[in-house]
Amino acid sequence: MNLIELGMGKIQWAEEHMPVIMKIEKDFKKTKPLKNIRIAAALHITEETALLCKIFEEGGAKVNLCASNPLSTKDDVVAALRKSSNVKVFAKYGETKKEYYKNMQRALENKPDIIIDDGADLIALAHSEKIDGIIGGQEETTTGVIRLKAMEKKKQLRFPVVAVNDAETKMMFDNRYGTGQSALTGILEATNVMIAGKNFVVCGYGWCGKGAAARARGMGANVIVVEVNPRKALEAYMDGFRVMPIKEAAKIGDIFLTTTGDIHVIREAHFKLMKSGAILANAGHFNVEIDVDALEKMASSKKQIRKNTMRYEFENGKYIYLLAEGRLVNLVAADGHPSEVLDLSFSNQALVSTYLARHGSELQNKVYNVPEEIDHKIARLKLETLGIKIDSLTLEQKKYLSSWKIGT
Amino acid sequence: MNLIELGMGKIQWAEEHMPVIMKIEKDFKKTKPLKNIRIAAALHITEETALLCKIFEEGGAKVNLCASNPLSTKDDVVAALRKSSNVKVFAKYGETKKEYYKNMQRALENKPDIIIDDGADLIALAHSEKIDGIIGGQEETTTGVIRLKAMEKKKQLRFPVVAVNDAETKMMFDNRYGTGQSALTGILEATNVMIAGKNFVVCGYGWCGKGAAARARGMGANVIVVEVNPRKALEAYMDGFRVMPIKEAAKIGDIFLTTTGDIHVIREAHFKLMKSGAILANAGHFNVEIDVDALEKMASSKKQIRKNTMRYEFENGKYIYLLAEGRLVNLVAADGHPSEVLDLSFSNQALVSTYLARHGSELQNKVYNVPEEIDHKIARLKLETLGIKIDSLTLEQKKYLSSWKIGT
Amino acid sequence: MNLIELGMGKIQWAEEHMPVIMKIEKDFKKTKPLKNIRIAAALHITEETALLCKIFEEGGAKVNLCASNPLSTKDDVVAALRKSSNVKVFAKYGETKKEYYKNMQRALENKPDIIIDDGADLIALAHSEKIDGIIGGQEETTTGVIRLKAMEKKKQLRFPVVAVNDAETKMMFDNRYGTGQSALTGILEATNVMIAGKNFVVCGYGWCGKGAAARARGMGANVIVVEVNPRKALEAYMDGFRVMPIKEAAKIGDIFLTTTGDIHVIREAHFKLMKSGAILANAGHFNVEIDVDALEKMASSKKQIRKNTMRYEFENGKYIYLLAEGRLVNLVAADGHPSEVLDLSFSNQALVSTYLARHGSELQNKVYNVPEEIDHKIARLKLETLGIKIDSLTLEQKKYLSSWKIGT
Amino acid sequence: MNLIELGMGKIQWAEEHMPVIMKIEKDFKKTKPLKNIRIAAALHITEETALLCKIFEEGGAKVNLCASNPLSTKDDVVAALRKSSNVKVFAKYGETKKEYYKNMQRALENKPDIIIDDGADLIALAHSEKIDGIIGGQEETTTGVIRLKAMEKKKQLRFPVVAVNDAETKMMFDNRYGTGQSALTGILEATNVMIAGKNFVVCGYGWCGKGAAARARGMGANVIVVEVNPRKALEAYMDGFRVMPIKEAAKIGDIFLTTTGDIHVIREAHFKLMKSGAILANAGHFNVEIDVDALEKMASSKKQIRKNTMRYEFENGKYIYLLAEGRLVNLVAADGHPSEVLDLSFSNQALVSTYLARHGSELQNKVYNVPEEIDHKIARLKLETLGIKIDSLTLEQKKYLSSWKIGT
Repeated sequence: MNLIELGMGKIQWAEEHMPVIMKIEKDFKKTKPLKNIRIAAALHITEETALLCKIFEEGGAKVNLCASNPLSTKDDVVAALRKSSNVKVFAKYGETKKEYYKNMQRALENKPDIIIDDGADLIALAHSEKIDGIIGGQEETTTGVIRLKAMEKKKQLRFPVVAVNDAETKMMFDNRYGTGQSALTGILEATNVMIAGKNFVVCGYGWCGKGAAARARGMGANVIVVEVNPRKALEAYMDGFRVMPIKEAAKIGDIFLTTTGDIHVIREAHFKLMKSGAILANAGHFNVEIDVDALEKMASSKKQIRKNTMRYEFENGKYIYLLAEGRLVNLVAADGHPSEVLDLSFSNQALVSTYLARHGSELQNKVYNVPEEIDHKIARLKLETLGIKIDSLTLEQKKYLSSWKIGT
Repeated sequence: MNLIELGMGKIQWAEEHMPVIMKIEKDFKKTKPLKNIRIAAALHITEETALLCKIFEEGGAKVNLCASNPLSTKDDVVAALRKSSNVKVFAKYGETKKEYYKNMQRALENKPDIIIDDGADLIALAHSEKIDGIIGGQEETTTGVIRLKAMEKKKQLRFPVVAVNDAETKMMFDNRYGTGQSALTGILEATNVMIAGKNFVVCGYGWCGKGAAARARGMGANVIVVEVNPRKALEAYMDGFRVMPIKEAAKIGDIFLTTTGDIHVIREAHFKLMKSGAILANAGHFNVEIDVDALEKMASSKKQIRKNTMRYEFENGKYIYLLAEGRLVNLVAADGHPSEVLDLSFSNQALVSTYLARHGSELQNKVYNVPEEIDHKIARLKLETLGIKIDSLTLEQKKYLSSWKIGT
Repeated sequence: MNLIELGMGKIQWAEEHMPVIMKIEKDFKKTKPLKNIRIAAALHITEETALLCKIFEEGGAKVNLCASNPLSTKDDVVAALRKSSNVKVFAKYGETKKEYYKNMQRALENKPDIIIDDGADLIALAHSEKIDGIIGGQEETTTGVIRLKAMEKKKQLRFPVVAVNDAETKMMFDNRYGTGQSALTGILEATNVMIAGKNFVVCGYGWCGKGAAARARGMGANVIVVEVNPRKALEAYMDGFRVMPIKEAAKIGDIFLTTTGDIHVIREAHFKLMKSGAILANAGHFNVEIDVDALEKMASSKKQIRKNTMRYEFENGKYIYLLAEGRLVNLVAADGHPSEVLDLSFSNQALVSTYLARHGSELQNKVYNVPEEIDHKIARLKLETLGIKIDSLTLEQKKYLSSWKIGT
Repeated sequence: MNLIELGMGKIQWAEEHMPVIMKIEKDFKKTKPLKNIRIAAALHITEETALLCKIFEEGGAKVNLCASNPLSTKDDVVAALRKSSNVKVFAKYGETKKEYYKNMQRALENKPDIIIDDGADLIALAHSEKIDGIIGGQEETTTGVIRLKAMEKKKQLRFPVVAVNDAETKMMFDNRYGTGQSALTGILEATNVMIAGKNFVVCGYGWCGKGAAARARGMGANVIVVEVNPRKALEAYMDGFRVMPIKEAAKIGDIFLTTTGDIHVIREAHFKLMKSGAILANAGHFNVEIDVDALEKMASSKKQIRKNTMRYEFENGKYIYLLAEGRLVNLVAADGHPSEVLDLSFSNQALVSTYLARHGSELQNKVYNVPEEIDHKIARLKLETLGIKIDSLTLEQKKYLSSWKIGT
């Protein structure tokens, strides 16, 4: 199979596993809700993203696409997308940091009405480049939303942004079940390490961390959680995990996974404490959670021992394995989130785009939540496509819930 | 052992398993933050409640206590509380509905400054009796908060109420881990039924339902979830449970547990579909979730086959077991929530009481959340008493989180 | 309800939850396979045992019944059994050790053809009393089978014994799912302790230990396994549990459960290391696994703090809780195994009795396994009563399995 | 990295994750227990196998190696093995069936003393070719042991064979935790399908099936078990899985995995019942469990949609995905078992080889179990290398276990 065929196969797989977005596509084809809308999107360029972009086109939009990470672009998908659509793609696998930013700039050259972002790099660039005329943006990650709220707080946000990440049908599913499964898959593809019995350290017990901890346990690991938030730490304890500071976990961990959205969660002091053979991986958006620079400096030699697995050896003979250069292990070493769960996330992107196209001008320069009716609609559609029926409240039940007089 | 000794033993157990509230007690003894405050409380009268009331006294308050459910009062605890404190207790196990309300009225006779409630019956009574001078209330249950928000919406709330139920350290722990474990314990104590392999139907996938579903699976059950909310239904599906309408679940369920806060979730139409031998239990606050009246009418005979287990037989020979008369199975058939988790809930009650004493007059007649600093403080104290240490953010990490310029 | 009514209710519950034995009953009624057989049985006297004895009578046998543990007899069941059958019961709850053995002697006075035992006390007594004419025995517990194999090895066994415990449909179900669930239930009924988050130490990772570890984890515990067998220890490690020697586990355990069949698994040296508030329980047959004598000597005071929970306090103020006097916590503090799983165990007892009646005289004085056809029959009947259908091998599949020529 | 470097990296990974075999290597180097022994081995040619063969050489043996499956050979490992040892390798990835058997024949040309097999193809060939002088064989799979026992039964076995597969440290670990994890990894690498929520049908509830069912549940699947053995079916039921015949499971399954060792477990009648989009995978040794021929005939078209994923479309538009051509999904679509668990299996191979070299001539032409002391030794060594300490029986405990006089 050549590159285009490989990419077309993957996109077909996405079509066959994203039933909600395929329903939206039908509607877009008919109603063209994005007519004349220019979109600039920075996303992980996978089959699901390709499908999303094609659907934007079906809805009337013109789309520029660049990568949201230098190592997550699938070249076969890019080839297939170029072949089968008018989407302009500025990305290739393994681009340098400079090319990465250059491609972002080119993506913005269409004077976008809407920016779709994954990590907030593109929105940040649109700000530093002072691009005008943007109706609104959308952000797909916890990391990005943190950045955007910092901008809002400092009154530097120049257009409204919808925190797609925070939609219930996104955050509670993509971050939990998506990252949970795909981070494990990434570790397994990179190393084929036995999970059962291992001390598996999860840094961060937000939705991503919860998902990863649950899946690691499901594979037989002995999970340890590291947190800074007391309530989340207490939750991890009640979920049956050991909870301790990273400097204690560092000594006994076999596998480490960061899911915090913060910087240098695992750093020099911790590398020193680790057992020989420890495995380090990151599932947070940026490659800052593990201090790779420090590791590079400390090591006396390094060697690629498996695809996506670098073995750092120290002077005393101890060695540590780093996966995927400390970048998103699920996207670099595996195929990223399953299509089924991106179906929810990208349906939010699709419907929020029509919302921005219609209502963006009414909004202020703030970070907004996804409108509740979009969130609910997507949950309903997903259940429908799964063939799952649920109950509705009876009249009696509705009345009961709105009354306060009926007690014991 | 006589009644007082039994009760004293239980209260001692509570003292030895509620370390956060014991820390608060020390502080209360010293600072008397509730000096001259009159409290009327409607709570399940267990050892933990007794301890809470004694600590209110240590803090300077005068306490009237009545039951929040006719079947959850432990007479030995009442005896011990009367012996060892000045708390006025108006309750006995198995009181009639009339006595129950009469006792509520008597509890209000101290012209309370603060009302502490569990189900909102006492607050409702204070409204219908038009009692004045109340600084504020507190509500401990999902059911009660629903009622109070209905009151607020209709502008009928006459004093501010803090939704203690909605504190993170309450709802995410007491409702999930507390109800989860104790509802299972209640079913086990009442029936000793084998859980492994059974189709276990959980109605409602809120915090209580999630906890119960997790625990039932943990005991080997094959769990089925019934929901009305699409997002929660989808979550249950992704958690690996079967999801279906109650009229489908009714046909195949072996054990049913309601945790919805709503009325007649299981009713005549569903009883008709059930297999012979089905077991019905409720963990919601009120005994309305299972339509017991309908069951009584449909059955041709009934017989108490075990303590807290009633066997209803139909004309065709089919029989169904109802536990605890459809009341809170964890409190009627077992000992209710473990002390360790009530430590969190009741520490909220204690600290919110001091908050109301100090700030109640500044509040409006609305339903308020527990102040965040109380919530966080309790989580921190709990970790501390468990001997669990966690990390703090480094300066670099704090700075990173508040910046938006650092990207890929 | 009076004692007889309570007991009758429980026996009815057993009838409604033991479908396999009820099928055997129908057959026994018709064919009387135990006609003129005298049975002496030492069993935990619960509703399921009562039902078994009644069925023996239906099959033509005369039954003497004594207890296999002084604290596991349910007086209400004894009353109901006496009222509704001709079974001679020599037992009462809380009998002294002397009464216990006296009752065993009386049970043997019917010159039994078959002895049914649970712990091998009755068989041991029949040996030391040199009772003749016994066709064969049956033993229900791991502990008892260990004792009987020691007898066989020393050539002291005077009649054949069938190790009912070792039947697949017994050991893999009763010991695992039965003890697993009921040991947890016993701990919960005795203490209502929060399981989630606790360090739960399981001593022994045989079928009972595996069951208990799985259920403790299922309730949210952080399980630690103590073993002497390397393969079982390795299995526990791969199952995601921490594995360590008891002297390490003693320091960090919150709850301890013994399931080994051996003596003094937890002893003075370990009590000294424990945290204040540790909870000790035993699920092995005899009350020797925890060295209660040592605990009694070490403690400066003791106090019953809850039903079935004794609080031992040491001079330094530390205290430890012992449940059920170190006896079988599932039978003393709870109702023992669920009827559904005893359905398998007791169906083995019933069918092995007919096997001994017919073939006992052909056997040697050895410990025998349950005949495979009995084991399989019970599994088949259980599935049938559960309404579960399974596949059969096709002709092609049978042929394939018996051939060796078909390879890659 | 070139092919040899890739292979050397993988072999180094194996060395760093197989501590027991590395201990055996040290001993082999010193004592040369296999001096002048000729070994012919048919194994999946992975890094672990390369390491095993090198260790045989260290022990003094001469080794011929061929593949045990046409699609499981890693060419990079072959290149590295050839470069770094004298092992003669007759295999390449994707060899035809004819080449596969030709290579087997060449492997036998060294007139082996010992045959090491994985599926019994090589032993079968040695029989049909009537090769003499073989001291003994070893078999690594359930499938192979079934074949060899059929040969033994028909008195056609020409030399003794040790069923390495049946060692506790093999079967209970490699089959359960190894297949459990790697079958899931294979499915994930081939499809990246969302596991959570899916109806995941496991055919066969032996050790492999149990492992896969546990891991699938651990990833959030809703597991259904298909069995022909009533006891195993009952066990699956009690483990909380749905149990049903394949013709029922076929209708609702999303993903199917066969682990039976038998032929045509999923066949034409079942393909017809399946939902569009069903995914089929096999983890049994031979590619006969799914009737691929029937699928080929039924389909109107087929298309490779992803690497290792073939999409079969039927005339009515329905499509089914078949993974890895119905061959071992864990070895074809992923890296096979993790090194850590093969450490146990291959240590058995190593030590059984020395056992056969020393004692083979004393054995009969039968299928033997691995000597218990080898099994135990490996478990002990593994714990040791994991740094796990366990208890030993005290004198008192040993005495107790050998006595029968100490009762209640």
